[in-house]
Amino acid sequence: MASKTQTESLTVRSRKRSDALDITDRVEQLVRESDVSDGLCHVYVPHTTAGVFINENADPDVLTDLLGTLDNLVPWEGGYRHAEGNAAAHIKSTLVGTSQTIPIREGRLQLGRWQGIFLADFDGPRERTVRVTITAG
Amino acid sequence: MASKTQTESLTVRSRKRSDALDITDRVEQLVRESDVSDGLCHVYVPHTTAGVFINENADPDVLTDLLGTLDNLVPWEGGYRHAEGNAAAHIKSTLVGTSQTIPIREGRLQLGRWQGIFLADFDGPRERTVRVTITAG
Amino acid sequence: MASKTQTESLTVRSRKRSDALDITDRVEQLVRESDVSDGLCHVYVPHTTAGVFINENADPDVLTDLLGTLDNLVPWEGGYRHAEGNAAAHIKSTLVGTSQTIPIREGRLQLGRWQGIFLADFDGPRERTVRVTITAG
Repeated sequence: MASKTQTESLTVRSRKRSDALDITDRVEQLVRESDVSDGLCHVYVPHTTAGVFINENADPDVLTDLLGTLDNLVPWEGGYRHAEGNAAAHIKSTLVGTSQTIPIREGRLQLGRWQGIFLADFDGPRERTVRVTITAG
Repeated sequence: MASKTQTESLTVRSRKRSDALDITDRVEQLVRESDVSDGLCHVYVPHTTAGVFINENADPDVLTDLLGTLDNLVPWEGGYRHAEGNAAAHIKSTLVGTSQTIPIREGRLQLGRWQGIFLADFDGPRERTVRVTITAG
Repeated sequence: MASKTQTESLTVRSRKRSDALDITDRVEQLVRESDVSDGLCHVYVPHTTAGVFINENADPDVLTDLLGTLDNLVPWEGGYRHAEGNAAAHIKSTLVGTSQTIPIREGRLQLGRWQGIFLADFDGPRERTVRVTITAG
């Protein structure tokens, strides 16, 4: 094997200022194509006003509740100093996190039964990049 | 060495709705048994109403303060839309995070002097699974 | 190659109780020195009242807004039980997270254009350690 680390990029497009986009199927496809049996899958956003999280992918109300609670905790208008006007998006990015890591076993992502992988955009709508790194340790 | 990625599962049982369970010793034992000298240890919960965090394991009041503050920020009753009634647990799961990664050096977890690894259950009491992946890069 | 996992430590010094220190250049230098082409870079704090996050490194007002919002959400005086008086710092450590992982490709950290890596001290001023683990999967 020439290299055991593989990196791919995905492009996604948010439709609202606060949006959560399910990228599970696309990440799973990259894992299948990677031919890695056992390792880790790292999902990273190279943005400072977006994040990646893992949560329920069955009831979309969970996403609405999550984004709404984050809006209540970190309101868009909050007397911030950052002149661009999107300080709340930067703060929510750090609360949610810039990446997630998921185990790979026997060629499959080891997500729990109800888990999906989501890009969170906090300053949409716009196009975002997701970097997926698959390593066989 | 046939494989340099090893995955094991732990089962833990929470005793309250919001609970923090110290799993440090069990994770350290898996690292010792893995025979990995230098690498990373990834601790993952395949659940959407639980999380994993690293914090002080000396004074249990730290855990009480942490869980209590999360309850104040994301109250159980909060006018959520998710019909199952545990939206707060989903939200706290994303704030705390679904996994933690800890360095391994010379066969030992490189935790700081006061650090322990905890499963956070936000919708207990119930049995939970923790997936521990050990990679020698 | 004798080992494909390399761990180095950095020492940083905070100047205020809540402080964010840009460690991007020092982490990038370790990646260059590691001679790893493709892999992951894991940045870890072995402390329970500090964290690591990735956010904008162009406008320092973003850091001021982030630390100020965390202070509002988790005030220093909050009727906590932890007798040492720094419970808020422990809680903020878990909200921000103990580590970050960044992809490495062609020998370079794959940070986004505006992203920097920061140590967050929530109980400064004091000296802190950062453990940087570089793995070629």
